Amino acid sequence: MHTTVGIIGGGPAGLLLSRLLHRAGVGCVVLESRDRAYVEQRQRAGILEQSTVDALREAGAAARLDAEGLVHDGVELRWEGRSHRIDFPSLTDGRRVWVYAQTEVVKDLVALQLADGAALHFGAEVHSVEGADTGRPTIRYSHDGQDSSLTCDYVVGCDGFHGVTRAAVPEGVRRTYERAYPYSWLGILADVAPSCAELVYAHSPRGFALHSMRSPEVSRMYLQVPNGTDPAAWPDERIWDELDARFALDGWKLNRGPITSRSVLPMRSSVTEPMRYGSVFLAGDAAHIVPPTGAKGLNLAAADVVVLSRALIRQHRTGATDLLDAYSDTCLRRVWRAEHFSYFLTTTLHTGPDQSPFDTRLQIAQLDRIATSPHAAAELAMNYAGLPLP
Amino acid sequence: MHTTVGIIGGGPAGLLLSRLLHRAGVGCVVLESRDRAYVEQRQRAGILEQSTVDALREAGAAARLDAEGLVHDGVELRWEGRSHRIDFPSLTDGRRVWVYAQTEVVKDLVALQLADGAALHFGAEVHSVEGADTGRPTIRYSHDGQDSSLTCDYVVGCDGFHGVTRAAVPEGVRRTYERAYPYSWLGILADVAPSCAELVYAHSPRGFALHSMRSPEVSRMYLQVPNGTDPAAWPDERIWDELDARFALDGWKLNRGPITSRSVLPMRSSVTEPMRYGSVFLAGDAAHIVPPTGAKGLNLAAADVVVLSRALIRQHRTGATDLLDAYSDTCLRRVWRAEHFSYFLTTTLHTGPDQSPFDTRLQIAQLDRIATSPHAAAELAMNYAGLPLP
Repeated sequence: MHTTVGIIGGGPAGLLLSRLLHRAGVGCVVLESRDRAYVEQRQRAGILEQSTVDALREAGAAARLDAEGLVHDGVELRWEGRSHRIDFPSLTDGRRVWVYAQTEVVKDLVALQLADGAALHFGAEVHSVEGADTGRPTIRYSHDGQDSSLTCDYVVGCDGFHGVTRAAVPEGVRRTYERAYPYSWLGILADVAPSCAELVYAHSPRGFALHSMRSPEVSRMYLQVPNGTDPAAWPDERIWDELDARFALDGWKLNRGPITSRSVLPMRSSVTEPMRYGSVFLAGDAAHIVPPTGAKGLNLAAADVVVLSRALIRQHRTGATDLLDAYSDTCLRRVWRAEHFSYFLTTTLHTGPDQSPFDTRLQIAQLDRIATSPHAAAELAMNYAGLPLP
Repeated sequence: MHTTVGIIGGGPAGLLLSRLLHRAGVGCVVLESRDRAYVEQRQRAGILEQSTVDALREAGAAARLDAEGLVHDGVELRWEGRSHRIDFPSLTDGRRVWVYAQTEVVKDLVALQLADGAALHFGAEVHSVEGADTGRPTIRYSHDGQDSSLTCDYVVGCDGFHGVTRAAVPEGVRRTYERAYPYSWLGILADVAPSCAELVYAHSPRGFALHSMRSPEVSRMYLQVPNGTDPAAWPDERIWDELDARFALDGWKLNRGPITSRSVLPMRSSVTEPMRYGSVFLAGDAAHIVPPTGAKGLNLAAADVVVLSRALIRQHRTGATDLLDAYSDTCLRRVWRAEHFSYFLTTTLHTGPDQSPFDTRLQIAQLDRIATSPHAAAELAMNYAGLPLP
């Protein structure tokens, strides 16, 4: 079997790429190792940047997002009992973000893909990518107990950090830059109306806390916890009490409700360079990981596949490979910007286990600056709401 | 003997305070432990913020500064073989900096003080400050081999981190926040025309370097070196070769000349809170230390004494102590901003001994951002050229 673009991984990056290529008449096949239900239930991000929403619209996949997504024009910062709102549109020339869970993005893209009759194979376990440095790479995989192979003009790995594609780039070629953080997040979903209209990022001597939401009925909240924390050590009341303490603000009250999910998320940064090797391209988590603080993971993945789809469509239509040749450099500029922003926001808001009182005062000084300098506020707003695509 | 304001320390902070008070008719006495020649030769800072220049003008001490000081409208950043200029006036509403050495500021202030017949005692070694928590503090000191005491309404400690005044604030009252950096600066003076019109801050995998100047004939340069470095291990040629390597930029050439001075400067941050205890006030290095990267040390000291002079003059004229009561909080806001900025600039430009390749990429991403975002550039310019006084 042969296709123009073989896409490994049916998460939001692979699916969005497939949609963009399919609509432009570029043949592609998506291979996903898990089943549909698993992919559609995988809890991940929930904040879409302006440019991600633009891409989903371009892909024809934004109907439910536009109907049900919550448009947010800002976020709130809290520290030392104070509060400061960052207004995105006024600080970024009109950009904003959407609260719409990754699970819903995936459901929308899967439904469209299948309705279109486009190739999307669940339960297709990829074993290897061969001939990455040739013009005819081959994906070897098994499906329904049968070994198959797919030859391609190009292979795109949207299969995450531990996926097969990243490993197909020889070790002498790829270089990985990494940083681990000395804390994790305990994330919960609760069946209770959000206690705030916009996200709240709280700096506290007890540790960071984030109040987010999934819908008008479902709150999503996070607590900084030590690495290695067992979620079972956090019964409901302990979670609510701790959230209360970290969000504390005069006149503000946190709604409590049944907690339906709790899990611990590690925090790390990683970038693999280059994002292309011969006929093989890496996109999304296969090339880079960010801590969740800046809400950049899904958005970076979407930016990658938008850039890549343009390059593949151009090559398909004109034969020109200039955009494909520029793919890695183009994406890495945005990736490192997002890595820096994610690091900045993470280290400004979290209290590290070895943090000195001097370090804490520096964090407070930075937050005070954001609250008083329009330039500092604009830097936060522009990075958070997301830079325009190149 | 009695005076209204007893000032301990005849560096730029103590002398400027004395000038401002003297001109307003507030009695004061400056006690300096060293002799005049020592104080006038002590190599320290060389960059004056707009507000420091304004204060020196207000004190009537800017005639030579205005004639001989070099006005700088920007600085240059270098990294990865690239160069970017930060233009202060366009990014800060017209603010700029002056290159004029601390030694010259001190000479000008000493000359004025003596010409005026104002009290300035060199070789006056202060032993203790007593009665800080009373309305009549007493400075005990020896001068010309004779023990003396000076009772005051207020005592101001401009005698540095290791001075007597800071120690006069009881340990249970004062809190010190500190950070040491894992590198030092090797600073040199060279009898050679500067190789650039403005200061150059260079990020390099070999370590940070700074090209500054003292005059059109004297260059002042710094190299990041490991803590504990012996200046004798750096003969002239090694210094010039290393500077060449760190400043490397196509088409740019570093002028070499005789090195007349070389010394190693430690890098640390420190803040003592509060900056007032009873009738005793701390100003300048007695209350805070910054690493030299942001050129904030002398400027913070000047800001402290401007704020304090206004408060003392107001108390003298009206009896109102509101500004004196606000002194510590007013100054500490500016101090922490400067501490954060100095930390930011230091950690963005230096290569730490344990720095990972990921950390280096974050530094590059930050420098790239400053070169592309007007907001990021404005934050750097505003902090560097100095925020307006409150």
